[in-house]
Amino acid sequence: MNEKQATSLRILDAASKRFLHYGYQKTTMAEIARDLSMSTGNLYRFYASKLDIAEELALKSENNEFYYLEQILTQNISATEKIRKFIFKLFKDTFDQLNENKKINEIAQVILNERPEYGLRRLAREREILIKIFCEGVLNGEFAENNNKEDLMLAFQCATMRFRIIALPYLHDFEKIAHELDLVLDLLIAGLKYKQD
Amino acid sequence: MNEKQATSLRILDAASKRFLHYGYQKTTMAEIARDLSMSTGNLYRFYASKLDIAEELALKSENNEFYYLEQILTQNISATEKIRKFIFKLFKDTFDQLNENKKINEIAQVILNERPEYGLRRLAREREILIKIFCEGVLNGEFAENNNKEDLMLAFQCATMRFRIIALPYLHDFEKIAHELDLVLDLLIAGLKYKQD
Repeated sequence: MNEKQATSLRILDAASKRFLHYGYQKTTMAEIARDLSMSTGNLYRFYASKLDIAEELALKSENNEFYYLEQILTQNISATEKIRKFIFKLFKDTFDQLNENKKINEIAQVILNERPEYGLRRLAREREILIKIFCEGVLNGEFAENNNKEDLMLAFQCATMRFRIIALPYLHDFEKIAHELDLVLDLLIAGLKYKQD
Repeated sequence: MNEKQATSLRILDAASKRFLHYGYQKTTMAEIARDLSMSTGNLYRFYASKLDIAEELALKSENNEFYYLEQILTQNISATEKIRKFIFKLFKDTFDQLNENKKINEIAQVILNERPEYGLRRLAREREILIKIFCEGVLNGEFAENNNKEDLMLAFQCATMRFRIIALPYLHDFEKIAHELDLVLDLLIAGLKYKQD
């Protein structure tokens, strides 16, 4: 790691502390610079905006999450179990994140509103894994063949989006929502097994 | 209609105009009373709070929507077409409402946050119709039998919730979202047809 990369990491760390403590909107670039005994002008040479810092933080957390999600592919379980585990993990991560610190919610909302392409890219990245799981399930006879895997997994993703939507009402009741997700997955997996005429 | 009912309607009408023009939060009970040349004290005899007025307005709009939704049951089309039409109508209504007037969104959000039981009751009312359609589909052989219709239709509802969530990003692109809903309905209906072992 060169000096530039080390400074970038120190900036992310300082910004993250402020965002989680005071909130994204209430943090200024000047404050982050001050925490690092750095001039605001110098900070802007590393990140052109506060939003860029937030996006970089989101990407780091996304990469951690995908490290786990990709592990699911290599596990010695059926494709049905993999797809359930995959979606359940995404739900659990959203749930935990929201309940741990409301300030994370604020950052997520800002990124989704200001950088819609971020969310779309992330969803596409998830679908790549879903498609791999689906193909595996077709190969071993768990799921029916389908000549449009992309659309099918897009549908699967949309149909479980309710368990990812930020600021879900009743988000406290984990057991209730997890049960609803189980019911949805039962129905969707039946849909994947069904052979169209 | 007696005088009390007539006054209630005039209050709803005056409040609705203010909510849609200035927004729910920016409207006060005193302003609604003034529009009707009525004392604020008298207004409170009809509605104990601004939230009660908003809920009554939501219920009126809900009843109009259900008038149409219940018509779907009597149409001379397959159960598959009925269930698609039902969910599509709910999506279209949400979409139109959000794009017509942002102030409606504000009222809806307030009711969902402050009166969660309102949303739950409405969803249960929708499921009653979904269950009727499902039973019809089982009877005429379109769908596989299932001994837990309630849970199955709850799953169907949850899986299409993404098309009902207020403040959806990219809500402008009707065609794109409608296409995604079509894909979701294809998968869900395949799930309803699949015979579990």
